[in-house]
Amino acid sequence: MADKNAVTIIAFSGDLDKLFASFTIATGAAASGMKVSMFFTFWGLKLIQQEGSKPKGLNWMQKMFSWMVKPGTEKRSLSKLNMFGAGPAMLKKLMKKSKVPSLKEMMTAARSMGVKMTACTTSMEVMGITKESLSPEVDNIAGVTSFLAEAKESSMTLFI
Amino acid sequence: MADKNAVTIIAFSGDLDKLFASFTIATGAAASGMKVSMFFTFWGLKLIQQEGSKPKGLNWMQKMFSWMVKPGTEKRSLSKLNMFGAGPAMLKKLMKKSKVPSLKEMMTAARSMGVKMTACTTSMEVMGITKESLSPEVDNIAGVTSFLAEAKESSMTLFI
Amino acid sequence: MADKNAVTIIAFSGDLDKLFASFTIATGAAASGMKVSMFFTFWGLKLIQQEGSKPKGLNWMQKMFSWMVKPGTEKRSLSKLNMFGAGPAMLKKLMKKSKVPSLKEMMTAARSMGVKMTACTTSMEVMGITKESLSPEVDNIAGVTSFLAEAKESSMTLFI
Repeated sequence: MADKNAVTIIAFSGDLDKLFASFTIATGAAASGMKVSMFFTFWGLKLIQQEGSKPKGLNWMQKMFSWMVKPGTEKRSLSKLNMFGAGPAMLKKLMKKSKVPSLKEMMTAARSMGVKMTACTTSMEVMGITKESLSPEVDNIAGVTSFLAEAKESSMTLFI
Repeated sequence: MADKNAVTIIAFSGDLDKLFASFTIATGAAASGMKVSMFFTFWGLKLIQQEGSKPKGLNWMQKMFSWMVKPGTEKRSLSKLNMFGAGPAMLKKLMKKSKVPSLKEMMTAARSMGVKMTACTTSMEVMGITKESLSPEVDNIAGVTSFLAEAKESSMTLFI
Repeated sequence: MADKNAVTIIAFSGDLDKLFASFTIATGAAASGMKVSMFFTFWGLKLIQQEGSKPKGLNWMQKMFSWMVKPGTEKRSLSKLNMFGAGPAMLKKLMKKSKVPSLKEMMTAARSMGVKMTACTTSMEVMGITKESLSPEVDNIAGVTSFLAEAKESSMTLFI
């Protein structure tokens, strides 16, 4: 336990701005040689669900949640100034201008740098998200016990 | 300080989804033998205020806050898709279907597992929340200094 | 690394209630002899931008963000119950009644207690916020690598 050179991030939010923060920290930490683990739970799960995925066997409530919060990297909204999608569109353009990578590029970079991405079992079940509908970047599926074990060995654990 | 086997959670949000996350981590950590402490502050205080409690002597601004954000475990809204209460109602049903315990059950479980629950003094005073109106699960009342002392001895401190 | 007597706060939110939480923890920690560092990023940058500052050379998207989220300590909105400014106005009055210092006073106190305040380079570039427009309380400008180095040496790192 001496030198905890690790970061654990709980990606709870599905908002573009917060996900940018999560991946900036994750890729920055991985680049500086830290071990990084990301747990996607609740709204955060929507990011790692494949775009256009239409899971079967959902009840009407799960369908409603699924329909109202779109999956994938491109459909994320902003926590403020969303303005029916105008906010995220502007922010993406501004980031591109400043040569900040897109969320999709950050995710790919994180993956290639060895950032571990885990989907939360309980949230998946509640929201009716199947293993098959998850992005290929996702390593595994686990619950809170697995998260705690990693977080205990991290120098910082962030809830974003 | 060698082995910091503890978790400190600042429950700032009063939203159902975030409180679910807080208690899932809190009960999970307690179940795995960790020491857990939760600090309820700001909107989070509304959870640990007893339902139907009508504090006296509030000024009109405190009354307004009190009236607009209802106390107790049952009246929590969602951070997204609240839809005037339809969102939380659906989520609760989905969770029940997946056999996830309710917020009330989680709170009781946390209590019986020895999770320490503290209400923030300053927020209580500002919002006009009295000691008498707090849920019986709450152990004590304290300020930021007490929080910091505990957080320093924790392996992770989360702001939720 | 033995005794990590430090706190690192990522001030991501620009909301009055969350900024109050950040500064309460920051000043509390500094008062108890801890080393405190605050990283202002994204919406949080708006707090440390001088009121009335009108940066030149912004493109229309940056102007729009700049116009919709006002800079400075006085214009912060609430994460809930904002009610077009009535919420923050009420909260400020309630805090004054309870003798809680204002955000501006907390910032000055933090500064005089040695709390380090850093503005995030990337967010500044994206939003078109110049160094000249920042409050005098801000010490320096840095990116994620600098944040990670400090966070690694902290006993707690909070994303607020």
